[in-house]
Amino acid sequence: MVETETGTRHREKMAKKKAARDKIMAGKTEIRGLVIVHTGKGKGKSTAAWGLALRAMGHGQRVGIVQFVKGAWETGERGMLEDRFGDLCTIQALGRGFSWESQDLEKDTEAAEHAWAAAQKMMADPEFDLVIMDEINIALRYGQLDVANVAQAMKDKRTDLHVVLTGRNAPDELIDVADLVTEMTQIKHPFRSGVKAQEGIEF
Amino acid sequence: MVETETGTRHREKMAKKKAARDKIMAGKTEIRGLVIVHTGKGKGKSTAAWGLALRAMGHGQRVGIVQFVKGAWETGERGMLEDRFGDLCTIQALGRGFSWESQDLEKDTEAAEHAWAAAQKMMADPEFDLVIMDEINIALRYGQLDVANVAQAMKDKRTDLHVVLTGRNAPDELIDVADLVTEMTQIKHPFRSGVKAQEGIEF
Repeated sequence: MVETETGTRHREKMAKKKAARDKIMAGKTEIRGLVIVHTGKGKGKSTAAWGLALRAMGHGQRVGIVQFVKGAWETGERGMLEDRFGDLCTIQALGRGFSWESQDLEKDTEAAEHAWAAAQKMMADPEFDLVIMDEINIALRYGQLDVANVAQAMKDKRTDLHVVLTGRNAPDELIDVADLVTEMTQIKHPFRSGVKAQEGIEF
Repeated sequence: MVETETGTRHREKMAKKKAARDKIMAGKTEIRGLVIVHTGKGKGKSTAAWGLALRAMGHGQRVGIVQFVKGAWETGERGMLEDRFGDLCTIQALGRGFSWESQDLEKDTEAAEHAWAAAQKMMADPEFDLVIMDEINIALRYGQLDVANVAQAMKDKRTDLHVVLTGRNAPDELIDVADLVTEMTQIKHPFRSGVKAQEGIEF
């Protein structure tokens, strides 16, 4: 099935690609904790953050997670994580539900400020290698937190700390101070074709 | 800080948003396993799949993972997952490394076919609720697997099974049969500013 000529061409092409990649990698020398932003309207922003948590714990790193919005990860799932990863993972669910569910700006703001205080405490605690601020962008978007404050905290963070901030509509000030920004774009969504949200996948 | 007028306006806006959302949700009735694709050049494709695995396991669901490309998740991390989630999670690392590292199309094709056979076995096994085919799009891209075959298998799958397929350059045939497609777009990447890949974050 694989012709020799094709095989040779492929090998040459891949060798070139590898050489280019190796050259890029050799130039990378600085080691420091990253500020990572997951934004966009697509799925996967929080999920990818939890995947990063899993990966970090796989390296024996300690992870702190603050949930700025309730509901993304339910009590049962958090309980399971705490049971199995309690030695490596601390989760604080301090949000009040999505703003369109709550309709009370004042209480939302209080909850956001409380969550931000908890996140800052984790950032200052050298025990944590990675701090995830899940859905913090929602709180920023609705003016429940001061963007300049949060951006400054990212600039001032310990150099050995990774921070992940998730949620759609990441403000420009945050993107400016981030090292790595990924936008999740929805290309196709099952809701459009009448499929109900799925336990274990959607919630 | 929060003015009454602003509070009222916010409440009205959020109430409208909630009503619109509730209406959409009420129309969703079909329950079936989804075919989910994570593609694009940005980070987070595999990571979000592992996050989905975590979430599914949080619901007590069983997860099968086939790695079509070696390296995305290292032995140590897999070991940790198997230790702590061995009752819920089966991982088969059957890939040979990224194509630009390997330069041998024939061996890559063999490995891809082997991995695809393992993935199909998991799809047929009712014990699994979620099957993740990590980086399968790479194998499709380099012609190591037949796209039509894979697309047909997604159409023919058990209705109660979720499948996640990851990797950049997802072929159109796959997107056509998928229920949920998310594209991860790189907006900002630390490699560009000379930062070395970080243990626990990048690998």
